[in-house]
Amino acid sequence: MGVPKCEVLQIAIVCAGYNSSRSVVTLFKSLLFYRRNPLHFHMIADAKAQVVLHTLFSSWNVPHVEVSFYLTDNLAADISWVPNKHYSGVFGLMKLTLNKALPSSLKKVIVLDTDITVATDIAELWNLFSKFGPKQYIGLVENQSDWYLGKLWKSHRPWPALGRGYNTGVILIRLDVMRRSNWSQKWKLIAERDLTTLFSTQLADQDIINAVIKQHPEIVYNLPCQWNVQLSDNTRSELCYLEVMDLKAIHWNSPKKLKVKNKHVEFFRNLHLTFLEYDGNLLRRELFGCNNSRYITASNSLSQLSEEDECYEFRRARQTNYRTHLFFLDHEYDPTTDGYDVTLVATLSMDRLQMVEQLLTHWDGPVSLTLYMSDAEAQQFLSYTQSSEIIANRKNVAYHVVYKEGNFYPVNFLRNVGVQHVNTPYVFLTDIDFLPMFGLYVYLRKTLQNLHPDDSKKAWVVPAFETQRYRLSFPRSKAELLNRLDMGELFTFRYHVWTKGHAPTNFAKWRTATTPYKVPWEQDFEPYIVVRKDVPEYDTRFVGFGWNKVSHIMELHVIGFEFIVLPNAFIIHMPHAPSLDIAKFRTSPQYKKMCKNPQEGICG
Amino acid sequence: MGVPKCEVLQIAIVCAGYNSSRSVVTLFKSLLFYRRNPLHFHMIADAKAQVVLHTLFSSWNVPHVEVSFYLTDNLAADISWVPNKHYSGVFGLMKLTLNKALPSSLKKVIVLDTDITVATDIAELWNLFSKFGPKQYIGLVENQSDWYLGKLWKSHRPWPALGRGYNTGVILIRLDVMRRSNWSQKWKLIAERDLTTLFSTQLADQDIINAVIKQHPEIVYNLPCQWNVQLSDNTRSELCYLEVMDLKAIHWNSPKKLKVKNKHVEFFRNLHLTFLEYDGNLLRRELFGCNNSRYITASNSLSQLSEEDECYEFRRARQTNYRTHLFFLDHEYDPTTDGYDVTLVATLSMDRLQMVEQLLTHWDGPVSLTLYMSDAEAQQFLSYTQSSEIIANRKNVAYHVVYKEGNFYPVNFLRNVGVQHVNTPYVFLTDIDFLPMFGLYVYLRKTLQNLHPDDSKKAWVVPAFETQRYRLSFPRSKAELLNRLDMGELFTFRYHVWTKGHAPTNFAKWRTATTPYKVPWEQDFEPYIVVRKDVPEYDTRFVGFGWNKVSHIMELHVIGFEFIVLPNAFIIHMPHAPSLDIAKFRTSPQYKKMCKNPQEGICG
Repeated sequence: MGVPKCEVLQIAIVCAGYNSSRSVVTLFKSLLFYRRNPLHFHMIADAKAQVVLHTLFSSWNVPHVEVSFYLTDNLAADISWVPNKHYSGVFGLMKLTLNKALPSSLKKVIVLDTDITVATDIAELWNLFSKFGPKQYIGLVENQSDWYLGKLWKSHRPWPALGRGYNTGVILIRLDVMRRSNWSQKWKLIAERDLTTLFSTQLADQDIINAVIKQHPEIVYNLPCQWNVQLSDNTRSELCYLEVMDLKAIHWNSPKKLKVKNKHVEFFRNLHLTFLEYDGNLLRRELFGCNNSRYITASNSLSQLSEEDECYEFRRARQTNYRTHLFFLDHEYDPTTDGYDVTLVATLSMDRLQMVEQLLTHWDGPVSLTLYMSDAEAQQFLSYTQSSEIIANRKNVAYHVVYKEGNFYPVNFLRNVGVQHVNTPYVFLTDIDFLPMFGLYVYLRKTLQNLHPDDSKKAWVVPAFETQRYRLSFPRSKAELLNRLDMGELFTFRYHVWTKGHAPTNFAKWRTATTPYKVPWEQDFEPYIVVRKDVPEYDTRFVGFGWNKVSHIMELHVIGFEFIVLPNAFIIHMPHAPSLDIAKFRTSPQYKKMCKNPQEGICG
Repeated sequence: MGVPKCEVLQIAIVCAGYNSSRSVVTLFKSLLFYRRNPLHFHMIADAKAQVVLHTLFSSWNVPHVEVSFYLTDNLAADISWVPNKHYSGVFGLMKLTLNKALPSSLKKVIVLDTDITVATDIAELWNLFSKFGPKQYIGLVENQSDWYLGKLWKSHRPWPALGRGYNTGVILIRLDVMRRSNWSQKWKLIAERDLTTLFSTQLADQDIINAVIKQHPEIVYNLPCQWNVQLSDNTRSELCYLEVMDLKAIHWNSPKKLKVKNKHVEFFRNLHLTFLEYDGNLLRRELFGCNNSRYITASNSLSQLSEEDECYEFRRARQTNYRTHLFFLDHEYDPTTDGYDVTLVATLSMDRLQMVEQLLTHWDGPVSLTLYMSDAEAQQFLSYTQSSEIIANRKNVAYHVVYKEGNFYPVNFLRNVGVQHVNTPYVFLTDIDFLPMFGLYVYLRKTLQNLHPDDSKKAWVVPAFETQRYRLSFPRSKAELLNRLDMGELFTFRYHVWTKGHAPTNFAKWRTATTPYKVPWEQDFEPYIVVRKDVPEYDTRFVGFGWNKVSHIMELHVIGFEFIVLPNAFIIHMPHAPSLDIAKFRTSPQYKKMCKNPQEGICG
């Protein structure tokens, strides 16, 4: 290995949209798993990918990793004139602009497609730059399908290429030499010429790069085939790796992705799933002896805590910077014109996943759900959403994933993530085990519209009820609700165990109320409320079970919020077994003691 | 790398008891993750470890891995005379007998302690055999603490050693040369001599091996320090790896294990946790081009299935050989003398974990729980059990872990695992969401004792009830149960949704019954029963929700079982939200269709 210790390796990746931002994480994990050098990722990203990946990396906080973003909007003009039939659209051509996009100080860069999984230290690839001749500035692996031979089917007319052509999923670029060779002019001239007969590219940048190489073969350096083992539909890749035990990089370049047919697909899937499910928190590994200050993250205050402190787990949970993947699934939201739209905000973990479908049936407005899961669970969640018609058909639901760390459910951190990324002016702050009355979304919007609330310091209370039965036929109206309440089939929320939490709602008054009414705050009040999205954040020092919502409502009261009960709104709590956090609260003296001991402050 | 492709690497490990059998799995996973050669594990194991590891490897079914067992019982005589103060007891000396224990055809072997984690391909270590001189037959890394220098504390008198001495956590042994050198005689003579002044070994085999080397330094080959980076309490290991980026093997040789204090402990923990949580199923990777028939496992019938078949997931689940780790926690069972003991058998996944404590409070007899979990969840489970006094104090509960694979809960496979490893003559087949009446265990034993059942074809029915309330004050007697039933606080099980399942129990008769009464089988009967442990297995073609228990009861009926209801026994079902499998059943037409279409056979 010829790469000097602590040399920074430069890696560029084009990434656009929520789905690619999710797929590319597996590439990052495989790179970080095997790397022994500092890495600098250069992300050519659209606005969506930038939001997701910027938040991900800053919460991931991996030592010796730097990430820079280059917005594709600024580069599109150079390439959008090229007609392209490939599914990647204009982003598929983005790699042609790297000489302009990346800083001129950058001399060498590895370029990877998002559907690559590496199986070894990327420094081995970086090391191959040293083998480039003086005129070579682009390193590529030969194409492993017969595409460019033009014999795949009748009337198949591929772009010109040298022999079998090259695949552009993995590229080494000597940017300095490329810039000196007038790359921008070169590819444009050749593309313009070939487009006169071929009308559009079929494989995006790859067609144009092959056409350039066909005319200038001196610029290419042939990389060993195992650095881009192509699992496309007509691949001959086994000719490569049967010879060489060492697979270096797998390229899932079939539109079928993991479902592609291949003799060794189980082997490749296992490699891919390894990183898909790998706990990304474990990649926060330092590199011994590389103390270049630019690439090392700030020292962590966690190291100040003593593991022998009996409250260690609680203190640690308060300080944790949870790794966060915003908009884990595709998401669309069109703002309403009236300015009174409201997003339902809730948090959950895997054990409440079955609530999501029901919730979406009861609420057709925008939703922001923060999910607390492990990396492996996030994949189960993904496959669940793909199998659910109700979920797959709803684009106005934002799913934010916060990755598990430590032993407590960081409920207030999760709530804050959910509120922070809402696009509507109002939020409805609820819990995942409540179902809203049918039509609550429309009712809330109308109410806000009618009342034209001029003051932001109002919290609209949605009265909460509960059932102890699983198979509830959900009341269709307030009248039906009251009827069931009288029959003892429904109760006000926590009627039996914690009446104080909702007593200030004044259910007696609510029975006959037809207009919103103000109620005074009382100690331990914890209503479910509609507020403006700029509401103060929840206090993240509360983790696990207890006081997390009470403290928020108390803060709103202290800073002058009014609590106004809505007369025609309700939600009903659905029964479930106690969560493990509640079970711990009941049995662990530690857990209780810390909540009650004022010297410990607020912590449980 | 000088190891020929497909050469089999031989690895010996001493392992005894349930806890070591669990810890050693992390070593196996790290070895399998990085290996590129066939491996043959030689396990010097006690009976407990053999049961666990034999089942684990045969269900794991990793290609190109062979496992042989050598029972420590046969070897103990050679070493049990040595007084040893080390916590590992007689097993700590077992490595001295490898020349006898391992087959004479074996010429070279790598010996690893169970608390090693490797961080690279073990073939690199194997390759160092080629550097041994003709007289060298034992390869060792120098000790990284000052132990053998004898200056750690006043009156510290270590065994004799060459300089800092050697650590025996990682050993290369040339068995052929060792045998020719009369190893058995050599170590015994030296140990006998030193024991006259030192009275006992402190570090088990390590003391004796160091004493032998002190006298015969020509036998040792010095391994590079990074092959045994020792994280003991007084380690100077950073002198090793600060020089060498490549850490090869980490040795958790402090009694504090992962909680040891060390400058880089976070780094080492991450490496360890990587394999602790790693999905072991992903290690079923083939080695391309090594077709030595002895080391390849039988071709899998799974490959016959088509992924495009709409029932693929169901068919796959039926055929899966789930990786199984028996007795995941320490377990003790003393058979009762009367011959009528009964084990409660149930299955669960993480979402029912909070039921375990309650269950153990209601049943103090032996329990066999099969847990369906991922590797990461198994670690959460472990840490949960360590924090629970109720669980930690009960040794008569067997926890068997079956690792998740595919999308369905393989309920009948899990039940069979639970029944197969029971030590009592009778089993009580129940579900995790039921709580037995207090005293049920004693009642069942007395009843069986009194009735002296001469015939194995009897199924004793424990009547099942349900509550829809979480905070049930559990009835203390049959009279109280009946009272609550009359008040509508309790119901017979599934009274509202599936009366047929328990109607044959004849609850009307039960109210007044004082002696056991026989009831006829009827279609769809699914009672909870006490039977002899040699009861026919459950049909594992049933996965997910539906018909899994009905079919078992039907089979018992067909082969002539009588169903006899116990007059003073009951269990109560505790409420919980529907499982995802039930949710799928309700919403997926696929799921329902397959259960109802007779041409598909039984599959859901």
